[in-house]
Amino acid sequence: MSDIATRLKEIVGGHTLLAGDAIPDDYWHDEELNHPPQRPAYVAKPATAEEVAQLLKAATEHQVAVTARGSGTGLSGAALPREDGLVISFERMNKVLEVDTTNQVAVVQPGVTLTELDEATAEAGLRYMVQPGELSSSVGGNVGTNAGGMRAVKYGIARHNVLGLQAVLPTGEIIRTGGKIAKVSTGYDLTQLIVGSEGTLALATEVIVKLHPRLEHSATVLAPFADFDQVMEAVPQVIASGLGPYILEYIDNLTMAALVHTQNLELGVPDQIRDSCQAYLVVGLENRTADRLDQDIERAGELLAELGAVDAYVLEGGSARKLIEARENAFWTLKAIGADDLIDTVVPRGAMPKFLEAVRGLATAAGGGAAGCGHAGDGNVHLAIFCKDPDTRKRLLTDIFALAMELGGAISGEHGLGRAKAPYWRELEDPVKVDLLHRIKLSFDPAGILNPDVIFAAERQ
Amino acid sequence: MSDIATRLKEIVGGHTLLAGDAIPDDYWHDEELNHPPQRPAYVAKPATAEEVAQLLKAATEHQVAVTARGSGTGLSGAALPREDGLVISFERMNKVLEVDTTNQVAVVQPGVTLTELDEATAEAGLRYMVQPGELSSSVGGNVGTNAGGMRAVKYGIARHNVLGLQAVLPTGEIIRTGGKIAKVSTGYDLTQLIVGSEGTLALATEVIVKLHPRLEHSATVLAPFADFDQVMEAVPQVIASGLGPYILEYIDNLTMAALVHTQNLELGVPDQIRDSCQAYLVVGLENRTADRLDQDIERAGELLAELGAVDAYVLEGGSARKLIEARENAFWTLKAIGADDLIDTVVPRGAMPKFLEAVRGLATAAGGGAAGCGHAGDGNVHLAIFCKDPDTRKRLLTDIFALAMELGGAISGEHGLGRAKAPYWRELEDPVKVDLLHRIKLSFDPAGILNPDVIFAAERQ
Repeated sequence: MSDIATRLKEIVGGHTLLAGDAIPDDYWHDEELNHPPQRPAYVAKPATAEEVAQLLKAATEHQVAVTARGSGTGLSGAALPREDGLVISFERMNKVLEVDTTNQVAVVQPGVTLTELDEATAEAGLRYMVQPGELSSSVGGNVGTNAGGMRAVKYGIARHNVLGLQAVLPTGEIIRTGGKIAKVSTGYDLTQLIVGSEGTLALATEVIVKLHPRLEHSATVLAPFADFDQVMEAVPQVIASGLGPYILEYIDNLTMAALVHTQNLELGVPDQIRDSCQAYLVVGLENRTADRLDQDIERAGELLAELGAVDAYVLEGGSARKLIEARENAFWTLKAIGADDLIDTVVPRGAMPKFLEAVRGLATAAGGGAAGCGHAGDGNVHLAIFCKDPDTRKRLLTDIFALAMELGGAISGEHGLGRAKAPYWRELEDPVKVDLLHRIKLSFDPAGILNPDVIFAAERQ
Repeated sequence: MSDIATRLKEIVGGHTLLAGDAIPDDYWHDEELNHPPQRPAYVAKPATAEEVAQLLKAATEHQVAVTARGSGTGLSGAALPREDGLVISFERMNKVLEVDTTNQVAVVQPGVTLTELDEATAEAGLRYMVQPGELSSSVGGNVGTNAGGMRAVKYGIARHNVLGLQAVLPTGEIIRTGGKIAKVSTGYDLTQLIVGSEGTLALATEVIVKLHPRLEHSATVLAPFADFDQVMEAVPQVIASGLGPYILEYIDNLTMAALVHTQNLELGVPDQIRDSCQAYLVVGLENRTADRLDQDIERAGELLAELGAVDAYVLEGGSARKLIEARENAFWTLKAIGADDLIDTVVPRGAMPKFLEAVRGLATAAGGGAAGCGHAGDGNVHLAIFCKDPDTRKRLLTDIFALAMELGGAISGEHGLGRAKAPYWRELEDPVKVDLLHRIKLSFDPAGILNPDVIFAAERQ
């Protein structure tokens, strides 16, 4: 056994270090579509921050690449291991340490899943409002990718809901950042630097998340529109209305048809309307009283009619839940119908009509297609790209990302760059910024051991 | 004339470079209480990002310290110049470039004051919700200190409302970060790293800020409490109630007496109640309809009574506005009655009773006093410290800050470290973090020219 294997085993104990053939294929990949799975050299399952610190210290000394892994549900390949690398899996660090109702925060270990956190906070009537589609994702993964999800339009993304961290630097030092406090102006904000850094700066071993009261009354309004651009133009109007929707999604007709078909949705939309519609707006409303919710639903219905909706359907409990679940599972549906890649580009919401029209043009010109849905309120467009030939697809994605950036947007709104989208970013981003980010990277990770293929080119480390 | 003076003059033009005796004493200081004013060597007033870039390039090459200046209203001395240094004043870069109603953002130059921005957004029914006490402060200063203010309890601080920047690196490169987008997960978040960095990393030359709809109906409820701790214990309950106050302040009786006396406030609180009360809670409510506001006021009144308030006064337009203005001007009032220093420590809101009791004990033991008010919903405690002897005061502040940090808080919630609070931070903070922050600083500013006395010790640059 190699030196490093012996040392890693001493740190975490024999049965929580896996090596070589003993590593199950779950650890070889995340949910990114195009990279082949890769068995790492080691998987360690630490139980404490101190163990993580020792693992990182050893990895730095032996120059072993380290990939952190939560639930492995990422879509950009940030949890794809290296052949000669060490995966640090946080599956044993999965405790909700505290639900603090006075400060409305929870303190959790990174391996806690969103489902587990939801259960732990339910009794107190509170909730962590970052709800990306995949609720088996971990809080640590949320921190890594700066996760978003449907509720972001009201409650913000991980960045706005992660208040503090315990984190381990690649050199093995353990730091604490932020706290159970909503504001701080005392030195640079390390919490926000680590959030969204995709395991390239430091590994979170404890996360303080903000909780919000669960509002008791909610409803989902589904509005079909004959014209795609009308949906896009309706979005800023709904935001400006003061209704404060907690969900504001668009779903194009191809995607809706796939969702309805694969998930047996009953939405009550007559066939003739469905056939004549290019897209749907989904408006989630919630309030602390039933009366106010009823008023808001009525106002939303009127507003949507004014904005050109063909009709507006208020979905009852079961069908509303099923639609939202289907939307959350859109990834799996689009994958099942043969999507070749998935992107989650973000643009200013006012630029969505222009962006989507241009994307359709680019996709058609490339002999492919693009369909999807998205967090319309945030300008975060999730598109399935249909284009078999890898070179053509690469050119198509480059064109799409370049366009988004030209419009003032960015390559990813919530999935992150990972391995999959990072090469596009390096090609399209201002080299001054790429260099600056790399210097920041080195200020945390001078040996370049943390996820060396993610964000930056591996040869730079 | 020295080489550097000639070069600076070439960059900005003769009448916008001041040197030596020609520099008015406004540029010698900000509003920090204890540092003597210092005339800088030069004041440059650039008109464009390109001029700022050339100034910084020259300063890096000549190793001249640079202090950025907005309106000079900072309370921690981050705009105090060096004797041999260059002040870059953003007073000429004071344009609101765009009010974008579709994306609900404004694009502004850093020298725009909050009053000017408020006027520019009023017509569109929108507002930048970061409203620190001093509305003559500039947006650039807001970015530097990560400003907060009363509305932060609902709308967040500068960090949550600054979506993007154009910024100049000390090496003279101009970058753009973020955009008219609420979410992004594409590399490290440079926007959030620069926000709150107090002019030590890069200088903002354009700021994209989030705007919110102005809700038409608002009211202010003032609730006196006999017991100080009751106020503190009421705060999390008001937050949990779902009323969503946009202001949630406490004011202790000494501070309220000073405000009433110096600003001729008519609050309608009978003398006997005023005399028997230790503190007040101020609850600001707003809604998009008058009906809902009335319901919320009623509910707030009931809730405050349940929580032990002696009474609850709904302040009408004029007196409500005067109270809020008086609270905004509390700094001036406390300064006028002889405060020796001002702090804005933040602790978890549940720790406020313990913190404030301990602070009173520490201040009394030091032969001094502490009085104040604060953003109770955020745990952000603004205290005037009365303690004449500088050494005793220094020990007292060290003890107070150490206590706040022990309770999970931080030295400053919104004023920043500047020059004044930075020495305490360097003494009390984990040296691993101080070193890490310094490495980050050098990744932006290898020559150490940007505000070398702020956050870090000057000799480190």
